[in-house]
Order: sequence, then structure tokens, then C-alpha cells
Amino acid sequence: MGSADLVFPAGKRGGNAAAETGVHRAAVPPPQPFVKSLKSKLKETFFPDDPFRQFKNQPASRKVVLWLQYFLPILEWAPRYTFPDFKSDLVSGITIASLAIPQGISYAKLANLPPILGLYSSFVPPLVYAMMGSSKDLAVGTVAVASLLIASMLGKEVSPVENPTLYLHLAFTATFFAGVFQAALGFLRLGFIVDFLSHATIVGFMAGAATVVCLQQLKGMLGLQHFTSATDIVSVMRSVFSQTHQWRWESAVLGCGFLFFLLLTRYFSKRRPKLFWISAAAPLTSVVLGSVLVYLTHAEKHGVQVIGYLKKGLNPPSANHLVFTSPYMMTALKTGIITGVIALAEGIAVGRSFAMFKNYHIDGNKEMIAFGMMNMAGSCTSCYLTTGPFSRSAVNFNAGCKTAVSNIVMATAVMITLLFLTPLFHYTPLVVLSSIIIAAMLGLIDYEAALHLWKIDKVDFCVCLGAYAGVVFGSVEIGLVIAVSISMLRVLLFVARPRTFVVGNIPDSGIYRSKEQYPVANDVPGILILQIDAPIYFANASYLRERISRWITEEEDRLKASGETSLQYVILDMTAVASIDTSGISMLEEMKKNIDRVGLKLALANPGGEVMKKLDRAKFIEAMGPEWIYLTVGEAVTACNFMLHTCKPGSTDTPAMV
Amino acid sequence: MGSADLVFPAGKRGGNAAAETGVHRAAVPPPQPFVKSLKSKLKETFFPDDPFRQFKNQPASRKVVLWLQYFLPILEWAPRYTFPDFKSDLVSGITIASLAIPQGISYAKLANLPPILGLYSSFVPPLVYAMMGSSKDLAVGTVAVASLLIASMLGKEVSPVENPTLYLHLAFTATFFAGVFQAALGFLRLGFIVDFLSHATIVGFMAGAATVVCLQQLKGMLGLQHFTSATDIVSVMRSVFSQTHQWRWESAVLGCGFLFFLLLTRYFSKRRPKLFWISAAAPLTSVVLGSVLVYLTHAEKHGVQVIGYLKKGLNPPSANHLVFTSPYMMTALKTGIITGVIALAEGIAVGRSFAMFKNYHIDGNKEMIAFGMMNMAGSCTSCYLTTGPFSRSAVNFNAGCKTAVSNIVMATAVMITLLFLTPLFHYTPLVVLSSIIIAAMLGLIDYEAALHLWKIDKVDFCVCLGAYAGVVFGSVEIGLVIAVSISMLRVLLFVARPRTFVVGNIPDSGIYRSKEQYPVANDVPGILILQIDAPIYFANASYLRERISRWITEEEDRLKASGETSLQYVILDMTAVASIDTSGISMLEEMKKNIDRVGLKLALANPGGEVMKKLDRAKFIEAMGPEWIYLTVGEAVTACNFMLHTCKPGSTDTPAMV
Repeated sequence: MGSADLVFPAGKRGGNAAAETGVHRAAVPPPQPFVKSLKSKLKETFFPDDPFRQFKNQPASRKVVLWLQYFLPILEWAPRYTFPDFKSDLVSGITIASLAIPQGISYAKLANLPPILGLYSSFVPPLVYAMMGSSKDLAVGTVAVASLLIASMLGKEVSPVENPTLYLHLAFTATFFAGVFQAALGFLRLGFIVDFLSHATIVGFMAGAATVVCLQQLKGMLGLQHFTSATDIVSVMRSVFSQTHQWRWESAVLGCGFLFFLLLTRYFSKRRPKLFWISAAAPLTSVVLGSVLVYLTHAEKHGVQVIGYLKKGLNPPSANHLVFTSPYMMTALKTGIITGVIALAEGIAVGRSFAMFKNYHIDGNKEMIAFGMMNMAGSCTSCYLTTGPFSRSAVNFNAGCKTAVSNIVMATAVMITLLFLTPLFHYTPLVVLSSIIIAAMLGLIDYEAALHLWKIDKVDFCVCLGAYAGVVFGSVEIGLVIAVSISMLRVLLFVARPRTFVVGNIPDSGIYRSKEQYPVANDVPGILILQIDAPIYFANASYLRERISRWITEEEDRLKASGETSLQYVILDMTAVASIDTSGISMLEEMKKNIDRVGLKLALANPGGEVMKKLDRAKFIEAMGPEWIYLTVGEAVTACNFMLHTCKPGSTDTPAMV
Repeated sequence: MGSADLVFPAGKRGGNAAAETGVHRAAVPPPQPFVKSLKSKLKETFFPDDPFRQFKNQPASRKVVLWLQYFLPILEWAPRYTFPDFKSDLVSGITIASLAIPQGISYAKLANLPPILGLYSSFVPPLVYAMMGSSKDLAVGTVAVASLLIASMLGKEVSPVENPTLYLHLAFTATFFAGVFQAALGFLRLGFIVDFLSHATIVGFMAGAATVVCLQQLKGMLGLQHFTSATDIVSVMRSVFSQTHQWRWESAVLGCGFLFFLLLTRYFSKRRPKLFWISAAAPLTSVVLGSVLVYLTHAEKHGVQVIGYLKKGLNPPSANHLVFTSPYMMTALKTGIITGVIALAEGIAVGRSFAMFKNYHIDGNKEMIAFGMMNMAGSCTSCYLTTGPFSRSAVNFNAGCKTAVSNIVMATAVMITLLFLTPLFHYTPLVVLSSIIIAAMLGLIDYEAALHLWKIDKVDFCVCLGAYAGVVFGSVEIGLVIAVSISMLRVLLFVARPRTFVVGNIPDSGIYRSKEQYPVANDVPGILILQIDAPIYFANASYLRERISRWITEEEDRLKASGETSLQYVILDMTAVASIDTSGISMLEEMKKNIDRVGLKLALANPGGEVMKKLDRAKFIEAMGPEWIYLTVGEAVTACNFMLHTCKPGSTDTPAMV
């Protein structure tokens, strides 16, 4: 009794002969109780990272501490916080504050919200994140894409000009729903939904959004009073060129000048990473320079629009402003969910990238809870949607931040600005804000990544291009829908049209591999070996039936034409068939009948555990004869060859004498 | 220079040592021009059955004949048609006509259309199908589910009572669109869309629709005048029990009597397949008996509703009645597309099943064109949606039909009825039609199939149950959407949560298999072998990263606890990884970094052609070192073992001395 006896469960063996010659048989995995297998499946689906491993075998008091640390990571790292850490965080915190203030004001304008909201949003959310977030490098703040989305989605229902209060309240409500949705995804362990935004989607989507945001800035750059509310390139261009007589050269000159300055500083910082602070400080410098220039020249009276009065003081509460009455609630809900997902995708991708660099782990679901809490808290304190923008986090990282304390420093700086410095922004020209936005957005158009996609994977490139074109020519939502649909379609098409290969023997070995990949692989006379490269599901069952029957017909035609040994056996290599459903099993049954009918014999090689289990339950193994299911292609070929050369084909039904 | 040299492309080999020891390396498949690979991919996607193979190398005149035969299969088989064939077809044609006439009238009532349309629809479409269809057993006619769908979808927009003409014209228009859609699917080779209705979906959907249709018959059975237009069980039950005082016992008694008769004949026919004609003739017998009974007892004056006047004569033309003005066109379009897909799914599944029995081939896309043409022709000749119903085709098959001539015979019989016999249906009680429908529908509730699904595949059972519950408690459309969504979700979840297995060595062999399936498989000390069971896509990239890192941590913990050799190598068995995208490649790059960082070494075993191609393009192979990519797990283990026992772990970077 050799190993084969152990491998192949008793009572299902093909005969003693198998054991004697050492042929292995594919096994049905040992049965598991339904509840246990369901439990393990659920765990794999929702807790693949096993986040509660650390709680195992701990006393209750320790468990409470671990739970608190799980939800408030600050409790974990604060005790180990040192003064040198603080020095680093202080520098990076002040650096990102100098970026956050002008960016915050700009993005709030982009969202058609009062500029002061941009400052509010850089105060409360960073504090919440510093307590709950697990990234050490993320700098919290508002982002351009989400701001634009809020403007376009809410703007469809309520005009920010005619009804600014309702619009403002809807923005808070959308932020609240975004937070609830984000936290819910985290609590329900559904973080993988974010994974459906592939890298290619994000590259195309971000580039498209950046293009759209830049186009919107033409309003500020040209000093236009009226502008289309649509975001697609056609409407914007029509709007711009229909009012050429309204263009203000003062604005344009000022804007282009500052844009040039900002791009120049970026260029220097990129060439010398040590000079990162030049580009980080450039926006605030532009704001100061622009404000001084306007103040001295009274340019605000010559067509250069300025921010105007900003209220002093910290965030007023806004919890009582949340709108829960339809039909506006539905608009806010929809806006919240879409912007929430986009914000999550950006924040988590950014957090993960920097964690990779610095070699620590980020728990996606935990981050989602932190993001959700931060936005819920924000919506009650006059903030709108925040996340972890890439540009700001990169500055934070380059400035040498050690922990989330840099966010606290930034929040403190913003607090001081809110309390004492808001009047200084009175004369800040809007065109400077436009320049700041354009400069930031140009960095988001990652054409190199798109080229990389084209080189490696054409489908990914199409996804990227689809997202870009959808955003630029349609709207942000359309672009997103297109990109996600193409991505999904790709997955479905992969399952609907799996590849099948003819497998051959690699010379001087017992290894069998696809002839397409290994042109040296040789045919085995009289045997056709096919490899199926996907699970057999309803979506591909009839395709596979047609395709396999075509392989067989073609092979028979070829053999007839060349006068070689006619076909006797068909071996299906099931190694890559990870799963099968009832449609798949019916397909196999049908195929077996078809193959029998034309006088051939079907053998299976190496079906996986899941497949064996289901074939066994469906009694297919019994019907087929367990002796026709081999552990490797090599053994199946050996057995078939033996029969081919010793038995009359068709006369013996089982390879019992192998 | 052994085989390894041939296998591994020159210039990419890991060193001469590999060739000398006969270790094989995974190969990048030979490059193909982009156009050629795109062409072959498109062919695989749209022409997997290679339908034009027969046209190759034929003279032009022969090609014309073949093309005509391709679109009109009757030209192919008619010359071979014999008198014995005709005798068989005559018998089966008359048998299905006796079923078609009462069923046609019943289903037209179900669709809220004039009863005569049921007869019209059994005249023209069968003739068209006889010429264009490739099934020998399909009997064409209207079906209950599509009729119900038409009633519920069109009824939402236009009342069949208040505006019967518009309703009728919309039904023709919907039929026209269904035909256009079906033919378009066939021409565009998109037949695989129908495959997304899995077997489980169809079982649940059909059972649900049958339940709903039976519930609708309570109106006829109880002789009610008013009835809800909703189809869900709650509305129907409320409607029935809110008017208990309107129930007519005469109707109920008559209905139950005939239902009992019909079920009894079915029971006999099922026990003895030779007596199939008993159940086939039973509906017409019921109609005759019922009509005679009403005529003699004047029961129409005692609350038993009858069909009434039916116009004599053949189908009037209706092409000029098609409605192409919005908003009704959109309703008709939507109805047409949904009913068209359902009708296709049923017709093609039925055609395929009988082709399987009789051992001939059916081309799905060609069938779609035939169905589409038949419905387009039908919509212009006062017919509504037809397909190949299972019950009628089964009777046709059992009656011994040989070719589609049985459809011509049936059409002729219906033509005679239309020309001369319509007045005979004047006194046919509606309750008999209800009994006929109920008897037919009960056969569609296939609880055995549902049990089978539960036994083999729990997810398929959920899909089936979801479709059933959706149809019964919601509506037919909701049921369909639920079932298709669950099916899709399953495919997406399969890709989003691929299984990973620890692989071990099967004793006394060089074979490595999952330890879950083969509990006898042994660990290899110091090496962790993982098998990934799905393509690595954006949807699962981060899951796989987390899961693999958890496998490694768990294995290290286990080894530490048991004091065994610590982990040195991680081998990923990529056999089942059919494809990879750019997100997947980034994941591998990240993972490689992570694994390097903890002092382990990563090796890949047997990546497929597609994967190797992309890894090569992304320069991952170069970065990893081609010497770390093996052709089999066995060879990877041998190489790692060699290094483990001869070199200091970590000190050597390449297994050059293997």
C-alpha cells in the first residue's frame, strides 16, 4: 500500500492496480460541516487580514486596552512619542499649514461654498484623524475633485447663487452622509468595494478631473462674471469663447504670472527633493504677494476680483443645519455616497503608498472608520468633505513628519489664522487662487502612468482612457460609471471567455505545458490535452462546450490530413479550474456524452478540492468512473498511452490494468 | 544544451547551471504582432464555434449556396426529406396543433390581448421558423411568462380596458423590437448575453413566474370581474379576499373539475411516455367539453364567462400599426428587450436540450436570428411574441417529429381553424382556459431541480430562491434583476476573493498539492508554498497582498511555537493565475519588497503565458531575477532546498549554483 492509497479515499479507488503502480488519483477533500465551511468562507471574505488576531488569549482588561487602541491608535503611539519626533512634526505641520490655507480657500470656491469653509475644514477633521487614523503621513484636507463633484451634483438641484443657505446646508448633509457611508463600509468590512476602482481607473479619472478643474479656472483667470455650470469641455469652451469681450487682461496677466511662479518652484523642488519647502511655501507666498499687489494698486477696482470679507472666529456648530427632508435629502445622500467613495479611494491609496515607503501596515477598514468619523464630526462643525490629498501628504512626508501630530500642528496654525488673520485675506485676488488650483491640478495629470498602462496592458489603458474621456466630455459621474463598467466588464469577460490551450509534453521531462507558451512542447500521439484557464460557471459553460468541441474537431481534421494516429483520448487539465457551478457540471456531463459518442474517452487531470467536492455530490465522478480522474497530466497521459498501446481502443472501459 | 535551453529563451536564462542540471524555467511566450493577437482574441470572443469553417476553400457558387443554407436551413434538409419523415411530422404537427389552439387563446387572454391573437401567433411565426430555424424539435408558439410580462409592463402605461387599440399596437411594437433585438444579438454574435441567465436563475424565475401566472388565474377560476393589475402575491391575495362575496361557485366547480382532469391525464402520460397524446389532447378535449357544457346549460347566463365572438379569417396585416412615437415607443422598446431576452433564453435552452437528445448541433447565434426574423414577421401580421415553449416542444418530440415540417403542419391546422372553426369557440368558458394555464404552469415549478441545486451548490440555490422570491413578492422584472445581480455578484466575488492554499508535498512523489484537499501532503521545512486560484486583478490585488502576508505571519508564528526550521522561502504557485493586470503587477512588486524586507526570498512557479508576457513587459522578471521563476513547484522546492542546505540564507542572492 503506497502513497496512492492515502491520497485516494478508501472506497473510491479505481482498483488495486493503481496503488501497485504508484499512480495517484485526485481526491475529494475531507468533508467539512456546512456551518464550519460557511464560517471560514465568511471569514475569508470579510476578515482576510484577521484583525482580531492580537486579541486572542488576552485577559479581559488587556482586551479593553487593545480595543481602545484599535479604534484610537493615538493611545498606542502617544506614550512612545519623543521630543525629536515633535520637532520633526512641528516643521512638517507648519509647512502643510502654509499649503492648506490657500488650497482650502481655493477648493471651497471650487465647491461654490464660502471660502472660510476651506479653513474650517482644515481645523476639525485633522484633529479627529490624528486620534483615529493609523497613517503617520497623511495630511488631512479638502480635495479638488470632491469639491468639484459637490458643486456639480448639488448645483444641479439648488443654485448656490440664488439659495446659498440651502446649498450650504446640503453640503454639510452630503458630508455627513459621506461620513456615515465611509464608517459603515469600514464597520461592515466592505472595504473591498473601494478596490473596484482600479489603479487604471484612478489614473484616468484623476487626469480627467484635473483637466475639468483647470478648465473651470478659466473663469477666474479671465475674470469672467458669468460661467456655465456644466463641467464638460464643450460647454466650457463655448461659454469662454462666447464672451470674449468680457475677458479682463489684468486678471489674465496676474494669473499667468503666478502660475508661472508656482510651476517654476515646483520644477526646482522636483529636481532637488531637499528644496521641497520652496514649492510648499509658494502658494502662501503667492497669496501674500497677490494681496499686497492688489492692496497697493487697488486692482480690485479694475476688474480683479478679490475674496472680500472673511469672518473671524472658529468653526460655528452646524449639526442643526443638516437637512433630512426629501427631496433634498436624496440629492445629499447621492452626493455623499459618490464623493465619499472617491474621497476614500484617494485617501486610502495615499495612506497605503506612504505606509509602503516607511514600512508599516495600514488597515483599510480601520482607516475607513477614521475617515467616516472625521467627516461626521466635520459635518457638525461647518466643514465639508475632507480626505487625505496626495499633494499635501507628499509635502508632509518630504518635510519629515513622524506621526499624525503634524496634523495637529497644522490644525493649530489654521486655528490661529481663523482667530486672528482672516482680515488679511480681504484683498487676496481670486485669480491667485485659480493659479494655485491649476498648478496643483497639473500635477495630477499623470501621462507617464498612462503610457505605462499602454505598454503593459491595453485593456487597462482603455479603462483609463474611458474614465478620462467620460469625465472631460461628459461629467465626473459619467466618467466614473464608464471606468467602473469597463473594469467590471473586463472581469466578466474574463470569466465568460476563458482561454483554453492545447498542452504538450516538454521534451525530456514529465512536464506538460501550453504549446502556445512553450513552442518546444510536443504533441502526444492519439491524445488531446486541453487546459482550461478559468472556473467553469454559467457564464462560460456553453462557450467552453463549443470551444472544446471545436478543439477536438480541429485536431481530428489535422490528424486526418497528416495521416497521424487518430485521436483516442481527451484529457482536460483542470488545475486552473478553481470552481464550478451547477451549469458547469451539466456542461461537463453533456461534453462527456458528446465525447463518448464520437468514440473518444475523456479523462480529467488534477481537479481542485472545490471542483472534486461538487463533482462528487453531483455524482459525476461516479458516472465518469473515478479511474478517469488523475492527479497530474503526466499520469493521465501515461495511463492513456498504456491503454492505447495494449488495449483495442473502445473495447475496454476502464484503465484497470494500468 | 538540454531542453531547458529550448524552453527558456536565449538571453534570459538564469545561468548555465540551470541547463546543466536540467532545471526548467518558465518562458515568456514568443511575441506576437499586436494586430494578430487582437484578431485572435476577437475571434475567440465572438466566433468561438468558428461557424464559417465550412466556407473555407470553396468556389464562389458553392459559397452562395452555403450562405443561403446557413440562413435558411430548410434548403439544406428539404432535398433529403422523405415520405416516412412526413408521416411522423404529420402526426406530431396535428398533436401540437391540438395543444396550440387552446394554449394560444389562453395566453393571449393572459397578455390582455384579444384571444384571436393567440391563433394568429400560431400561424405565421411557425412558418418562418420552419424555414430559418435549425432545431428539428422546437414547436413555436406563445408562452405564458412573456405574455404575463407584456401584460404587466405595457399595462403600467396603457390600460388594455380603456385604450385597447393603443395597447394592441404597443404589443405589436414590443414584438417588433423584441425581434429586432434578438436578430441583432445574433448578427453581432452577442449570444453569450443569454448565458448570463444561469440555469439556477431560470429554474427560480420560471417557478416564480408560474406561481404568479397561477395566482392570476384565480380571477378566472372564481369568476371575478375586477382584479388587481399587480402581479405580486400580496396584492393578488388582497384583491381575491377583499371580494369574497363576488366569488362564483359555478366557475370554481367547473375550473377545478377541468384542472383535475388535466392533471390526471398528465399523470398518466408521465407514467407511460407512450401515452403522451392523452395529455397533449386533453386541453382541446377540455375546450370542446366545456363549450358543449356551456352551450347546453346556458351557463354563460349564470356567471360563467365565455370567450364570445372570434373573427373568422387569416392574420390581418399590422405593419402600419407599429408605434414609433415617444413616449410609448420607449415602453414598447423596454418591454420588447426584456421579453425578447426571456423568450430567447427559453427557446434556445429548449432547442439545445432536444438537440442533445437527438445528437445534432444548434448554433445559438443562428437561432437568435431565426427567432428575431420570426418575431419581426409576426409583428407585421398581427402576432405577438413567440418562442419555443418547453411543454409544446416536448409534446412535439414525444410525438416523434422528424423536422420543422411539424411546425408547418401545425400552422396549417391553425389556418383551417382560423378560416372555418372560430365560431365554435364562442361558448368556450374562460374558466377552462384558466385550468389549462394552471395545469401547464404547475409543470414549470421544478422543485426537484431546486433541491438538486441545494445539494450541489448553495450559492446557486440562493440565486434560484432570489429569483423566485423576487418574482412572487415583487414583480417579474425585480425577480430577474435580483437573479442576474446575484449571479454577477458571484462572479465578481469569485474574482475579488480568490482562494489561496498552502501546498504540500505528496509523499513519495514530486507532486505538490493543496494540503486542504490532500491532507497527506507534507510541509517542506523552511519553505512556504502558496497556490493562488484566480487571476490577479485590481479587484483582488489588495486582498491577496493582505492574505499572503497573513499566511506568512501565521506560518512564522507556528514554526516559532513548534521550534521548527524558520521560514526562508516563499514559493507562489501561479499555475491557476490565468491573467494579471497592472494593479496585480504593482501588488506583486509590493509583495516582493515586503517579503525581502522580512528576510525571506520569493520564488514563482509556473506563471502562464499571459502572466509571463506582462511581467516581462513591466520589467518585473528582470527586477526579481529570472532565476527565481521556475517551471514547476517541484523544481522551485529543489532549488530552494539546495540553497537552504548549502548557502547561508540571505547571503546569496541568486540560486546560481543549483
